[in-house]
Amino acid sequence: MYEDLRKAVCDANIELQKQKLVVYSWGNVSEIDRTAGVIAIKPSGVAYDELGPDKIVLVDLDGNVIEGKLAPSSDMPTHLELYRNFESVGGICHTHSVNATMWAQACREIPCFGTTHADYFYGPIPVTQAMTEVQMQSDYELNTGRVIVRRFANMDPMKMPAVLVANHGPFTWGSSGAEAVEAAVVLEQIAKMALGTIMINPNQNQIGKPLCDKHYLRKHGKNAYYGQK
Amino acid sequence: MYEDLRKAVCDANIELQKQKLVVYSWGNVSEIDRTAGVIAIKPSGVAYDELGPDKIVLVDLDGNVIEGKLAPSSDMPTHLELYRNFESVGGICHTHSVNATMWAQACREIPCFGTTHADYFYGPIPVTQAMTEVQMQSDYELNTGRVIVRRFANMDPMKMPAVLVANHGPFTWGSSGAEAVEAAVVLEQIAKMALGTIMINPNQNQIGKPLCDKHYLRKHGKNAYYGQK
Amino acid sequence: MYEDLRKAVCDANIELQKQKLVVYSWGNVSEIDRTAGVIAIKPSGVAYDELGPDKIVLVDLDGNVIEGKLAPSSDMPTHLELYRNFESVGGICHTHSVNATMWAQACREIPCFGTTHADYFYGPIPVTQAMTEVQMQSDYELNTGRVIVRRFANMDPMKMPAVLVANHGPFTWGSSGAEAVEAAVVLEQIAKMALGTIMINPNQNQIGKPLCDKHYLRKHGKNAYYGQK
Amino acid sequence: MYEDLRKAVCDANIELQKQKLVVYSWGNVSEIDRTAGVIAIKPSGVAYDELGPDKIVLVDLDGNVIEGKLAPSSDMPTHLELYRNFESVGGICHTHSVNATMWAQACREIPCFGTTHADYFYGPIPVTQAMTEVQMQSDYELNTGRVIVRRFANMDPMKMPAVLVANHGPFTWGSSGAEAVEAAVVLEQIAKMALGTIMINPNQNQIGKPLCDKHYLRKHGKNAYYGQK
Repeated sequence: MYEDLRKAVCDANIELQKQKLVVYSWGNVSEIDRTAGVIAIKPSGVAYDELGPDKIVLVDLDGNVIEGKLAPSSDMPTHLELYRNFESVGGICHTHSVNATMWAQACREIPCFGTTHADYFYGPIPVTQAMTEVQMQSDYELNTGRVIVRRFANMDPMKMPAVLVANHGPFTWGSSGAEAVEAAVVLEQIAKMALGTIMINPNQNQIGKPLCDKHYLRKHGKNAYYGQK
Repeated sequence: MYEDLRKAVCDANIELQKQKLVVYSWGNVSEIDRTAGVIAIKPSGVAYDELGPDKIVLVDLDGNVIEGKLAPSSDMPTHLELYRNFESVGGICHTHSVNATMWAQACREIPCFGTTHADYFYGPIPVTQAMTEVQMQSDYELNTGRVIVRRFANMDPMKMPAVLVANHGPFTWGSSGAEAVEAAVVLEQIAKMALGTIMINPNQNQIGKPLCDKHYLRKHGKNAYYGQK
Repeated sequence: MYEDLRKAVCDANIELQKQKLVVYSWGNVSEIDRTAGVIAIKPSGVAYDELGPDKIVLVDLDGNVIEGKLAPSSDMPTHLELYRNFESVGGICHTHSVNATMWAQACREIPCFGTTHADYFYGPIPVTQAMTEVQMQSDYELNTGRVIVRRFANMDPMKMPAVLVANHGPFTWGSSGAEAVEAAVVLEQIAKMALGTIMINPNQNQIGKPLCDKHYLRKHGKNAYYGQK
Repeated sequence: MYEDLRKAVCDANIELQKQKLVVYSWGNVSEIDRTAGVIAIKPSGVAYDELGPDKIVLVDLDGNVIEGKLAPSSDMPTHLELYRNFESVGGICHTHSVNATMWAQACREIPCFGTTHADYFYGPIPVTQAMTEVQMQSDYELNTGRVIVRRFANMDPMKMPAVLVANHGPFTWGSSGAEAVEAAVVLEQIAKMALGTIMINPNQNQIGKPLCDKHYLRKHGKNAYYGQK
């Protein structure tokens, strides 16, 4: 069942390793079939070299395993909470990529310092509030999803396909698992560039809305003209 | 038509990926046949792994497509403005390479801190003025070329084959596409070295003109003695 | 004799090179067979490309060579002191990996800034006291082990499988040589992340005990739920 | 003639590229046959991928070409000045490796912050005086050698097989070309570690003489006990 979905999710997970965003079994990618209400996700703690489509776990939006012998990623409840609240999201990715995690650990949003950033993310990369002790004690992974959703109260997740969970690391998303991984790769690049930018010029301001609009809308929306039609 | 030109431009683009200056389809290289007035350029948004000489687009100096089924790079108008104004330039390269982009985002020129820099670039790497809202609203890519040309009002582009577009990233050039890529590779090296230099010694001054002259002229001009004759 | 042990130690040492934690012959991994009281360890100054199970040296807990034609690692007395004092430790690893060594050279413990750290290490990575001249003059490597043991007077080494020897570099350990190497790999990641974290936010505090508990205990101990059962 | 010498120098040069210390044709390694008074050195501006023993140039201590169709490295006069003055040196290497060059450009010696450094270099890595305009105007490369020699007036080059030429980059040496390259690789590592060390602890002091002695003499001199006998 859902062979294409499992294959796509397997490939997207393996791409994390190729892109050097993960070590060992860290990180996970999922993708949802909205019509069926089925999510395919990486199994917990399995090495990327041993991953195959047959090891991808299928669950429903409540986290019940539909198919698969392995336990799903321990971060599954975070993924599900995002799918339940961000209806346009089709795929989700979580990593501890080094540069994005530096910003998450510093509890600082990544300022939009240039067009590389604006090409993909429409504004600074938001950071969640730190989780409370109560939020950690039970349903920790579900509550991780909730603090992300709360942070996006007034934002369109499809225009800002990334978040930094405070003291933790990034989640990214897109219309598919592959797109979520692409957002993770770009996030890592801009996180590194932003750190260098403030080292060179500690008082640098973010770019203004016109340049942000120009680049974001050059690539996204009905007037986009980047790439092939 | 122009098989050699398309092959050279394809190879130069692929070299960007080999040199790790780009991720995904970012970056682009072009080269001009001055006699024919024909420019070969990378198509927009095409992955490097899928690039071949047959996908390179041929345009004239006004941007009319002469041959090619794909849309040319969205940065084409910047390239053309440079070719029109920098008559000795034969090839142009644009990347968002990490270290050079840090300086562009910081809106700081890269100081000439040593002989690695002076071997290739005759002075600090200039930064353009930030673009105005009007310059962004229409003909943005053409205006990007114009702010570069304005920055070079009193400079010889062949002695300074690189510029940082403020809040954006580097453009480099040379007598061919391959040379433009070489300038991009070296620019990335010196951008990284310069950041380390100011981290070690925040008050370090640029090298003086005699050392800059010595190294630049050791490699360039009629008295050059580096390499084989 | 002890073919499996030598094979495991050889593989663990070679993994150091694969993970880019060492250059040349730097670094060493050992593993102990507690029942037999036999330790397998890398020979001194042998290149990783030339390493094979037959070159691994077998010694007892007093450092007497049981089998092997080559001299054991010059750091062997440090390993033995740790095995004698940390009874639950089954494997030990020493590297000069770049980022962990930065912290060791700075004589600063690595603060626990996030969940990547807390997933593996239950608190900040400790630094030993600097060694005294007397400690250096004789039995230097043994005394290196002693300053580590003294630093762990009130700590469980299995909850903190890493230490930074002041002015020197990291030692890591685990239930096997392979686990010790894994701890070295993760230590290098968190050392790099922590440096970036203080560059972005010099006043950042460590995460609190609840988040540290949550992540450490999610992966370790009787209530762990990460990975497959 | 001198086939072994040319082969050794060719291999040592190619090792620079493998170790990622150079881009393009940057860098050069030489080795001397003291009995014959013959030096083998890389040709100027030749790509590493095109290098073979037949392209290595043989010169005498006055710089006369003994054998070879290509022009020797433009840095040859620096090498020769070092061979003439450092009689125990058998091989010399020059690179613009990124981290060592940062320190050279900052005109700061690399402090001895730890045992990785002391294992190879007996004290801080010295920096030359900046060259004067007169020294640059004629015999620049020879004068580069002279400022190095002057910096070593009271030092044994075999205990300090590296120097940073101010505003330029490192030269390293050893008993052979291969050893000179090894010193360049280690220098790059310690340059990177030292930058991180001062970022973490800007007031960190160098290690004391006892620890420096311990590690340097553990590997060098008549009481060395590191490695195999």
